[in-house]
Amino acid sequence: EGEPHNVAFMKENYPSDFTYQDFAAQFTAEFFDPNYWAKVFQDSGVKYVVLTSKHHEGYTMWPSKYSWNWNAMDVGPHRDLVGEFAKAIKNNSTVKFGLYHSMYEWFNPYYLQDVANNFTTNDFVMKKTMPELYEIVERYEPEIVWSDGPHGPDWYWNSTVFLSWLTTNSTVKDTVVFNDRWGDEDPCTHGSFFTCGDRFNPGTLQPHKWENAMTMDTYSWGYRRNANIMDYLTIHDILVQLISTVSCGGNMLVNIGPTKEGMLPAIMEERLLQMGQWLSINGEAIYGSSPWKYQNDTLAPGVWYTAKGDSVYAFSLSWPTTDILTLASVIPTPQTHISMLGYDSTESLDFVEHNGHLEVHFPDMAKVSSKWVWVLQMNNVTPAPKP
Amino acid sequence: EGEPHNVAFMKENYPSDFTYQDFAAQFTAEFFDPNYWAKVFQDSGVKYVVLTSKHHEGYTMWPSKYSWNWNAMDVGPHRDLVGEFAKAIKNNSTVKFGLYHSMYEWFNPYYLQDVANNFTTNDFVMKKTMPELYEIVERYEPEIVWSDGPHGPDWYWNSTVFLSWLTTNSTVKDTVVFNDRWGDEDPCTHGSFFTCGDRFNPGTLQPHKWENAMTMDTYSWGYRRNANIMDYLTIHDILVQLISTVSCGGNMLVNIGPTKEGMLPAIMEERLLQMGQWLSINGEAIYGSSPWKYQNDTLAPGVWYTAKGDSVYAFSLSWPTTDILTLASVIPTPQTHISMLGYDSTESLDFVEHNGHLEVHFPDMAKVSSKWVWVLQMNNVTPAPKP
Amino acid sequence: EGEPHNVAFMKENYPSDFTYQDFAAQFTAEFFDPNYWAKVFQDSGVKYVVLTSKHHEGYTMWPSKYSWNWNAMDVGPHRDLVGEFAKAIKNNSTVKFGLYHSMYEWFNPYYLQDVANNFTTNDFVMKKTMPELYEIVERYEPEIVWSDGPHGPDWYWNSTVFLSWLTTNSTVKDTVVFNDRWGDEDPCTHGSFFTCGDRFNPGTLQPHKWENAMTMDTYSWGYRRNANIMDYLTIHDILVQLISTVSCGGNMLVNIGPTKEGMLPAIMEERLLQMGQWLSINGEAIYGSSPWKYQNDTLAPGVWYTAKGDSVYAFSLSWPTTDILTLASVIPTPQTHISMLGYDSTESLDFVEHNGHLEVHFPDMAKVSSKWVWVLQMNNVTPAPKP
Amino acid sequence: EGEPHNVAFMKENYPSDFTYQDFAAQFTAEFFDPNYWAKVFQDSGVKYVVLTSKHHEGYTMWPSKYSWNWNAMDVGPHRDLVGEFAKAIKNNSTVKFGLYHSMYEWFNPYYLQDVANNFTTNDFVMKKTMPELYEIVERYEPEIVWSDGPHGPDWYWNSTVFLSWLTTNSTVKDTVVFNDRWGDEDPCTHGSFFTCGDRFNPGTLQPHKWENAMTMDTYSWGYRRNANIMDYLTIHDILVQLISTVSCGGNMLVNIGPTKEGMLPAIMEERLLQMGQWLSINGEAIYGSSPWKYQNDTLAPGVWYTAKGDSVYAFSLSWPTTDILTLASVIPTPQTHISMLGYDSTESLDFVEHNGHLEVHFPDMAKVSSKWVWVLQMNNVTPAPKP
Repeated sequence: EGEPHNVAFMKENYPSDFTYQDFAAQFTAEFFDPNYWAKVFQDSGVKYVVLTSKHHEGYTMWPSKYSWNWNAMDVGPHRDLVGEFAKAIKNNSTVKFGLYHSMYEWFNPYYLQDVANNFTTNDFVMKKTMPELYEIVERYEPEIVWSDGPHGPDWYWNSTVFLSWLTTNSTVKDTVVFNDRWGDEDPCTHGSFFTCGDRFNPGTLQPHKWENAMTMDTYSWGYRRNANIMDYLTIHDILVQLISTVSCGGNMLVNIGPTKEGMLPAIMEERLLQMGQWLSINGEAIYGSSPWKYQNDTLAPGVWYTAKGDSVYAFSLSWPTTDILTLASVIPTPQTHISMLGYDSTESLDFVEHNGHLEVHFPDMAKVSSKWVWVLQMNNVTPAPKP
Repeated sequence: EGEPHNVAFMKENYPSDFTYQDFAAQFTAEFFDPNYWAKVFQDSGVKYVVLTSKHHEGYTMWPSKYSWNWNAMDVGPHRDLVGEFAKAIKNNSTVKFGLYHSMYEWFNPYYLQDVANNFTTNDFVMKKTMPELYEIVERYEPEIVWSDGPHGPDWYWNSTVFLSWLTTNSTVKDTVVFNDRWGDEDPCTHGSFFTCGDRFNPGTLQPHKWENAMTMDTYSWGYRRNANIMDYLTIHDILVQLISTVSCGGNMLVNIGPTKEGMLPAIMEERLLQMGQWLSINGEAIYGSSPWKYQNDTLAPGVWYTAKGDSVYAFSLSWPTTDILTLASVIPTPQTHISMLGYDSTESLDFVEHNGHLEVHFPDMAKVSSKWVWVLQMNNVTPAPKP
Repeated sequence: EGEPHNVAFMKENYPSDFTYQDFAAQFTAEFFDPNYWAKVFQDSGVKYVVLTSKHHEGYTMWPSKYSWNWNAMDVGPHRDLVGEFAKAIKNNSTVKFGLYHSMYEWFNPYYLQDVANNFTTNDFVMKKTMPELYEIVERYEPEIVWSDGPHGPDWYWNSTVFLSWLTTNSTVKDTVVFNDRWGDEDPCTHGSFFTCGDRFNPGTLQPHKWENAMTMDTYSWGYRRNANIMDYLTIHDILVQLISTVSCGGNMLVNIGPTKEGMLPAIMEERLLQMGQWLSINGEAIYGSSPWKYQNDTLAPGVWYTAKGDSVYAFSLSWPTTDILTLASVIPTPQTHISMLGYDSTESLDFVEHNGHLEVHFPDMAKVSSKWVWVLQMNNVTPAPKP
Repeated sequence: EGEPHNVAFMKENYPSDFTYQDFAAQFTAEFFDPNYWAKVFQDSGVKYVVLTSKHHEGYTMWPSKYSWNWNAMDVGPHRDLVGEFAKAIKNNSTVKFGLYHSMYEWFNPYYLQDVANNFTTNDFVMKKTMPELYEIVERYEPEIVWSDGPHGPDWYWNSTVFLSWLTTNSTVKDTVVFNDRWGDEDPCTHGSFFTCGDRFNPGTLQPHKWENAMTMDTYSWGYRRNANIMDYLTIHDILVQLISTVSCGGNMLVNIGPTKEGMLPAIMEERLLQMGQWLSINGEAIYGSSPWKYQNDTLAPGVWYTAKGDSVYAFSLSWPTTDILTLASVIPTPQTHISMLGYDSTESLDFVEHNGHLEVHFPDMAKVSSKWVWVLQMNNVTPAPKP
C-alpha cells in the first residue's frame, strides 16, 4: 500500500534496475505501415495530424544529428519514422502534416545542469533542443509545429529567434502554424493557436484560436497494454469533445497511442472511422465554421452552435424524446429554413415559434443517416437577445 | 515471392531456428484477471464459455500431470490458467463453464509414432491425451467438453470409453454436454451437439443440435498483433451469424484471441458488450427459443425466425426503408398481436394483410432501444403453407 | 541476511516469477562443435567421456519420445545434442562414449505423485524414466551408462529388469559398463563400478572398481558465469585427484560445465590439455595399471603407487628439495632398475639402500619433460613388509 | 561463400535489422566487482591499468553529460563503471589509473557531417569529444590519458589545446602521461609515449618511450564467447612480448576483454596471475630498467637484455639444453658476478670465457623458482664491441 501500481508492476515483472530507457529496445515498429495510417487518417475526417517527434525522454523518432544512438534509426525500429510518416501523409492524403516536439527532457544532462545553474547557462538549448527543432523543420517541413514542455523561462529557451526564423525564413514560412508552449511565461498568450493545458476545454468562447488536446484513452497518452474498453472514450464522448470545442472557437487534437509494434490499436481505428463516418455527414458544420453568437443554447441542454455563411448549425447531442427540440437562443424569421444534415436536404423540417422558443420537429429517424449527434442547419435565423 | 507472408516475417524478425514452441516463454499473462473476464462474459449475454485448455501444440493451460514443463504453470505465466478461470466463471457469473481440448498434437512424439505405425499402436492415447481429458474433467468439472482434432480412426482414440465414463460416472454426468469430434469417422454423427466444421453455418434447419464455431477476427483464432479494424467482424456481422445460427437450431460459439499479456483486446470487448446490449433487449427471442416452421422468410431478404411458447420472432437485419416490413411466411389471425422488442411492449404495431403478405408498420425508430437488428414478437400467427 | 546469495541474485536480476525452467530458452548452444570437443577430449588423454543426457530438471538433451517440448530439439538449441556428440566421439576419437541419466526428476508430476503415494505407484518409472533409458541405449549405444538420482526404493525403480536387458539383450551388451545408482538401497554394492558419492575419494584401496566423480570448478557441476580463477582446480589439484584415485583402484571422472552457447570454457580446455600433456608422458603409469601392495608410501608424503607388469610406479607430487626421494615401502633387488618417465629411459637413476629406505636420486630437472608430478618406473623391486 | 563469418552468424542468430547498438542492452555487468579487479591487477604485477572509457561506437562507460542515454548509467549496467573502477584502483592498489578514449566515433552524426564537410566544420570536436575528454580528466583524474582513433587532421581535433590544459592546468598536470594519437599527422611523433600501431613491437631500440599495445586473445580486443584455448596467448607468449618490448625501451599494455556480465574471463585471470608470479621473481629486471647497449644477443637466439644500475639482465626465453648458455654480446671482467633471479642470490653461477663468448652454467633447475623465462643478473660486465 502507498506504493503506486506502476512501481509495484515494475518490481514484479522486471529486473530491479530496469529503467525507462530500457524500454527503447522493445519498441520495434515492425508492423508500422505509414501509408495505411495515412489512409485511416484521411478516412477519419481529420484535417491535420501531429506526430510526436520527440517526447520528454529525448528519444528522437528520426535519426537526429543531435541524438546519437538515442533515436529510432539506431535503437529499436531502425527506421526514420518521422520521415516515412511525413512522406506518406503528404503523398497519400490531404491531411496537413505536423510535428510535436518536447523542448525539455527528463534525463538530458545538459538540461539538468542548466536547471541546476538556475538557467544561467543554456547549453541544452543551444546544443540539443534548438538544433533539433531546426533540423526537423528543414528536413520534414511540417505545417504545424507543436512545442511542449518548456520548463524554464522565456529568455532561457530563446524561442523567439526560432519562431522568427520559422515564420520568415523557413521553407514553410507561408503556411506554418505553431502553438504557444515556448517558455514558462507565455502559456495562452502567444502562438498561432493556444494549447492552454492538457484536455483544456473551457466551454466558453475563447478570444484566440485554441486547441483541445485530449486523449482517446482516458488515462494515458501512450498505449497501455492493460487498458479495458471502459478506459476508452466512446464515439459519443469524442463527438461531445469535438463539438463543444469547435463551438468555442477551438480545434480538437485527439491523441492515440500506437503499439510498440507500430500498429494503431483496433479500438482506436474503430473510433477514428466512426468519427470519419459522422464527419462525412456533418462535417460542413465543423470545417471552416466559426463560433456563433451563442456557444450553447440557454435552455436546451446539450445543444451547441456554430455558424458558416448564412447558416447557423445546432448540434443536438441526443435525439429529443418527443422528437421536438426546443431552442431558446434562436429566433426564426419568415425566411427561415431548417434542415437536418444526413436527412433529405430538400425538405424543410417543421418548426413553430412558441412561448418565445423555437420548436423544431425532428424527422423520421429511420431516414436519417447520422447515428450520433444530429445537426440542424438553420438559414435566416437570428440570435435571441442576450438575457 | 511464393514464400508465405508469415514465413517471410519469421525470417525477418527472429533467429533462424526459432520455433513455434519458442513463443511459449513470451506468453506471460501478467494482466490476466479472470474475475474481470467473468464479468465481461456475463455482460455479453453469453450462456456458456469454452476455454482452450490445450491446442495442437500440446501446451496445457493447467499444470497437467501428463505435460511436464510444457504447461502454463511451468513455462510462461506460471499460473493455473484453467483453474483460475474455472473458479472465476463459477463464482462470479451465471455462465456455464466449458473446456476445449485438442486430442491430437502436432509435435508429440508418441502421436507421431502412432501415426507412423498406421495407428496399430496407441501410446499417445493411453499415456497422454486420454489421461489429460480425465484429469481436466475431474479437476475442473466442465459442463461442456469440446474435443478437437481427432486425426486418426475411432478405434484408435477409444473415445467411447471416455464418453461413457463422462456421462455415467463423472461428477458432471448429469449436466455435461459434449461435441462430436472424437474420431475421424464421426463428424456430425454423434455427440450432444455437432460442430461439423470451422465456421459451419448451413443456413438451413439441422436435424440435430449444432454449433457454429466462428471467429471475431475473420482470419484467425489467435490474437494477431497486426490485425486492422477491417479484419474484425462488426457487431452487425456477429448478429447476422448469431441469428442465422439460432434460427436453424444451432448455437454460436464466437472465438476471441486474448493477448499474450492475458488481456481481452479492447475491440473484442467492445463487440462483446455490444452483443450484450443487444441481447439484453432481444435475448428472449434467442435464449430457449426453437426453430420455427420457416427459418427465413420466403420473400423478405434478411428476415429470420425463431419461436418460443405462443410467440414467433422475426429478426429484421435492416430497418425497412419505407418503415414497412413485408413478410410472406407469416399469416395473421384475428387474435394476432405484434410488438417490437425494445419498443413499448403494450402497444401493438399496425399491420395489414395485403396480397397474401403481412405488412408490419415499424414504430418511430427514435423510441426503439435496439440499435441493430430489430425483432418482432408475433403472437397468434400461423405459418404460411409451404409453397 | 539469512537469504541465500542465489535467491537474492534472482530477485535482483529476474522477474519475480522466473523459474528454473525459464532458463531453458536461454540455452542456445549456437557455438557447440562436437567434433572440436572430440578433439579436445582425445588430446586430454581421457579414455571415456560421459555426457549428461538428462539432469534432475528432466530436460532431455536428445529429442526424446517421452519428453515432448522439454528437450534440446524443441526448446533452446534445436539440435539433437546427444546424437551429434555421440557421432563425433565415435567417429573422431578413440574415447569411449558414455551417457549420464538422472532417474528421478525434481518437477515431474508423475514422480511427485509416486512419492506422495509412498511409491505404491510407479507411473513415473514405467511411463517416463525407464522408457527414456531404453531409448538412449538403443539410439545412441553408449558403452557407459551412468545412472543418478534414485530417490526411491529398489523395487520402485525396477532397475534390475533394465540392467538385465542392458547386459544380455542390448546392442552394447558385450562392452557396456554401468555404475551403481539404481535404487536407494544399493549405493556401493552393485554395478560394474561404484560411484559412492560426489567427489568420493577414500585414499585407501577399494575392494571393487570405483570412480571418483569430481568437478573442475570446486563449487559447481554447471558452468558459473561468475566463477573466478581461484574457484577452479589447478592442474596440480587435478593430478593429485587422478593419482590418488588410480592408486586406490578407481577412475577419475572430471566434470566440466559448458557455457549456454555450447563452448568449453577456455580455462577448462587449458586444464584438459595440461592433463593431456602430462598423460602423454606419464600415461603408462595410469592406463591399464593396477593398485600395488601399497597405495601411498609409509614414509614419504605425497607419494602414491601403481603397478603394471614388472613395473611399480611411484608418483611424486613434488620434486624433492634435495633431489633425493626417500621411500620406505619399496625394497630394491640386485636387478632393480629405476627410471623416470619423461627422462631418458635408457639411463637408470642412481639409488641406494640406506637405513632400510630406498633413496632415489632425481635427474637434472632441466632434462625432464614432465612439468608436474614426476613418476618413477621401478623394475624388479619388492614391497616392504607391512609394518 | 565470400560472406564473412560474423555476417553469417548475425543472420543466423539475430533479427535482420539487429545493429551493433542493439547489443548495449545486453551489457549488464551484474557481476562487476571493481575491488576484485583491483586485487587481480595488483597481483598481476602491472604498474598501470587503462580502462576503455569509450570506444568507437561512442557508448560512454560513465554517465557523460555529452552522451545522454548512450552510457553505462542509462543503458545496460546502470552503473558508473569508470567511477567505480577508478575508486577501486586508487583505494585498493598501487597500480596507476589510466583511461582510454576514442576520439572519433563510427556512428556520431556530428562526426559524419564533419567528415562529409571535409573537416571544414568541427562540431563533433567542440560539442562531443573534447568536452568528454575534459569531463573524464576532471571527474576521474587519470594519470594516463590514452587517446585513440583520430581519423581526421590535427587542426581538426585541435588537441594541442587540450594537451596544453592537461599538462599545465589540470589537477593531474604533474603526473599525467599521454600517448600520441591526437591527429592524423602525428603518430609516433608527439606524446609522452608512442603507440605506433596495434601490436607494434619492432624488436629494435626506439628513440622515444613507447608502448606495445597487444591482446591476450590473438584475434580480438573484446571478449569472444566462441574463443578456444588456442586463441589465447600462453604465458610464454606473453612473456616474450613483455621482454622484447622492455628490452627495446617500451612498455607492454596487455588487453583483456571482460564478459558482458562484468567478469574477467578465468583464462585471462590465470594469465595475469602467472604474469604476476613471474614478475614477483623477475620484476627487478623489468621495473625501472633501461635498454642496454644490446637489445638481444648477437649469437644466442631468444636472449634479450635490460640494464639497471650496475646490473645487466639477460632474459633466456628457454632453458639451454646443455645447461650452458653461450652469449656473444657480454664480456666478463675479473669482478664479474652472475646470478639467476629466483635462485639463491648469494651464489654466483659458474661461467667461463671461451672463444670470445661468455658461457654461463645454469644451476640445478629444481632449485629455481621461476617457471618460464630465466633471468641472469650480471654485474661488472661490459658489452662486446659492436661488430
